[in-house]
Amino acid sequence: MTSSLEEIRTEVLKRVTPSESERKKILSLARKLTEKVREAAKNEGVEADIRVEGSVAKNTWLRDYPEIDVFIRVPTTMPREAFGTVCLEIGKKATEGYRQIERFAEHPYLEAFVDDVCVNVVPCYSVKGGEWISATDRTPFHTDYVKPLLDERMGEEVRLLKRFMKGVAVYGAEIKVGGFSGYLCELLVLNYGSFVEVLRHAENWKERTVIDQEGHYKGKEAVKKNFEEPFVMVDPVDKGRNVAAAVRKEKLDEFIAASRTFLKAPDLKFFYPPETKVLDATELTNKISARGSTIVFISFEAAATVPDVLWGQLYKSQRALRKMIRQQDFTVLRDSVWSDEKNLNIFTFEIENRYLPNMKHHLGPPLRKKRECENFLRKHVEADSTVSGPRVEDGRWIVDVQRKYTDVVKLLNEKLWDGGRRDGVAELVSKAVVDSLEVLVNDEVLKLYSAYSEFAKFLTEYLEGKPRWLT
Amino acid sequence: MTSSLEEIRTEVLKRVTPSESERKKILSLARKLTEKVREAAKNEGVEADIRVEGSVAKNTWLRDYPEIDVFIRVPTTMPREAFGTVCLEIGKKATEGYRQIERFAEHPYLEAFVDDVCVNVVPCYSVKGGEWISATDRTPFHTDYVKPLLDERMGEEVRLLKRFMKGVAVYGAEIKVGGFSGYLCELLVLNYGSFVEVLRHAENWKERTVIDQEGHYKGKEAVKKNFEEPFVMVDPVDKGRNVAAAVRKEKLDEFIAASRTFLKAPDLKFFYPPETKVLDATELTNKISARGSTIVFISFEAAATVPDVLWGQLYKSQRALRKMIRQQDFTVLRDSVWSDEKNLNIFTFEIENRYLPNMKHHLGPPLRKKRECENFLRKHVEADSTVSGPRVEDGRWIVDVQRKYTDVVKLLNEKLWDGGRRDGVAELVSKAVVDSLEVLVNDEVLKLYSAYSEFAKFLTEYLEGKPRWLT
Repeated sequence: MTSSLEEIRTEVLKRVTPSESERKKILSLARKLTEKVREAAKNEGVEADIRVEGSVAKNTWLRDYPEIDVFIRVPTTMPREAFGTVCLEIGKKATEGYRQIERFAEHPYLEAFVDDVCVNVVPCYSVKGGEWISATDRTPFHTDYVKPLLDERMGEEVRLLKRFMKGVAVYGAEIKVGGFSGYLCELLVLNYGSFVEVLRHAENWKERTVIDQEGHYKGKEAVKKNFEEPFVMVDPVDKGRNVAAAVRKEKLDEFIAASRTFLKAPDLKFFYPPETKVLDATELTNKISARGSTIVFISFEAAATVPDVLWGQLYKSQRALRKMIRQQDFTVLRDSVWSDEKNLNIFTFEIENRYLPNMKHHLGPPLRKKRECENFLRKHVEADSTVSGPRVEDGRWIVDVQRKYTDVVKLLNEKLWDGGRRDGVAELVSKAVVDSLEVLVNDEVLKLYSAYSEFAKFLTEYLEGKPRWLT
Repeated sequence: MTSSLEEIRTEVLKRVTPSESERKKILSLARKLTEKVREAAKNEGVEADIRVEGSVAKNTWLRDYPEIDVFIRVPTTMPREAFGTVCLEIGKKATEGYRQIERFAEHPYLEAFVDDVCVNVVPCYSVKGGEWISATDRTPFHTDYVKPLLDERMGEEVRLLKRFMKGVAVYGAEIKVGGFSGYLCELLVLNYGSFVEVLRHAENWKERTVIDQEGHYKGKEAVKKNFEEPFVMVDPVDKGRNVAAAVRKEKLDEFIAASRTFLKAPDLKFFYPPETKVLDATELTNKISARGSTIVFISFEAAATVPDVLWGQLYKSQRALRKMIRQQDFTVLRDSVWSDEKNLNIFTFEIENRYLPNMKHHLGPPLRKKRECENFLRKHVEADSTVSGPRVEDGRWIVDVQRKYTDVVKLLNEKLWDGGRRDGVAELVSKAVVDSLEVLVNDEVLKLYSAYSEFAKFLTEYLEGKPRWLT
């Protein structure tokens, strides 16, 4: 159901803007936490600036996802090790009595849930702009840059853009998503003026789009020379940093495609996609068999690590396995990876044919390379591996040799029983694979499908094979 | 068993050189025939020069394959139609009482078997060099060019080269073979000096080798500009003609490869390859199943035409079918064609997998082409043919669509039931296919294999997949 852009804006804003009382509650909670952290720091003997950063500081948070970032800004004299441990301790003290999780990015920080609100207590150094020591040192500068430029109306535009990006699944700079961060959304709105203008420009973004709001470089070519990512937003507070460095090409493309389709036919579903209706067991079996391909599922228990590390290793391993399967001449139609980040990971490889013939062409040298031809013939004429040939075809020697793997399932079991490190499977994934590998084909996956509802959703969407906003 | 080059030369010469009495018999038969043809021409009122041409005239025939070419050289005033019919009549009269076959090349000629010797009575015009009217007009010039240059020893070298080329299956300019003519063998020996020298040069022939014995052109580049074939021997009697025009690239390559292997390890088998020991039914079945591929045989009864036309159409149809199968995404590993030229023709297509999945990737436009993307989405989002997608992959839209043909056997039956003209099957082949098509898979071919011993030999060699001289 297509509505007017204005109707949709209004409806979305109603949903994403915190009410006056909600806002007050969050801001008051933020103040209280700041106080508590300040006190805890004092008690630990740490002389620090305590500040609220992030979407709460900038008034750009989405109503359903409030997240309070309290930063402990310590002097540059504090040694790197104490920086992590002491601040973690401060966070713990300040949120004593609430659910707490230690997290790592570049260094440890504390996540806590206070009155059901997610709170991060994060250390950073109090540096001069440009003299960064830790990765979080820029954050206060981001807040200071954005805050004065974003009035109430512009805040609305940011909320619209964030919600749109969430809806079309490109929001979030974490490795799992590889999409757009909140700060990047704010800069996009500041640069183009409004949510709709961001989309209107995005639908025409070219191969390499660069934005340099503060004019740190002399022209776009200079920016392109300094960065290699597909989309570059030069950080206004740090000319050496691309705010969009985490944005993967496929997420950029999805955002461009979604922008176009939305502008042609605005619809609320871009912001709030309908829940995926999971296929039942019979439907699933029918759908898989109707494809006629072979879908191979590689399941193994989760490795104990933080999501960014896990997803980094999963993606790396996925690429490595894809390459390995292709090297053995199987045609990979598509592949994907799913994880609940706690119990189970599943790679999905869809293969054109599970089986290949016993023999394969092995190309020899072109006829004009006399010496190589001699060696090729010496090697293959009487060899056990030769099924047929050698013969000259299209100006070069060729021989049909025994193929090593004719069954992709056997291939995966053999390559993965010891973890697959030699083929490039990442370390933690490899360890988990050794302990708990299972290779399942087509509807053999039903037992996992029934046990893990999130996986069922994932697989249903995989078989659908298109963005949820595209109907 | 490797022997010295000298031993082999001696042995081969013993076998290919006619004995003195044999030679006398052939030459006397040739003289008698010339007389008879002359008389018949006179009776028909045709004023013509009667000459023996070809290998008998040049003393280069192989002992086991004597073939007497008697040419009727008529005045240029004779109309083109009479030229064919009258000369055919003369040939018939002259060989009355013997087995006779009417043949066609550019025009009709007569083949007869006189005392078990093959005799061709061929018309040509008595032209001045360069003013060719019919294709055979050059022949007397070839004889006159070669004869004075070939002494007894050089004749031996030509016989060796011809026998070598026969042994490695590259001898003969007819369409079926696409190899080296007798005249080309003579010119090669004249150019390089001996049989072995031809091979020594051949093993180093480059991508495009050109020989211009009489220096008709100013350098090799000029020759290359005027001809496009892979190997060029400018006809000493006609600068516009490539004597090697009929030589296909694959035959040229085979000759080069055979030359190298022979020179490294001279062996009689290059001249006289051992008879192929045909596989029995069980061996055949095992060999096919061990490959794991799908071999599809397309059999149909022979079209009534002369061999050159038949083979031209068979090769053309083979290429067309290969292309058609590949267009439907099946992987053709190798293909070949067999014919006994009388009863049966069989195309052989070896396919990686008989079946393909029900769906296939259909690539859409790259994201940057906005208008094309819109059209692509409009066409595929709700289409019945869409199995999965559309989605963006590697910067372009892609959709998984229903595949039209998932079984290569069904594909061939459907495309060929009406002869396959639309897919490029040649006319006479197409007609024969309509009447008598059978598509057989793997060991279903056994009934034909058992019925046609020459096909059994062909298929055994196909499965072996290498030149017979390579062991």
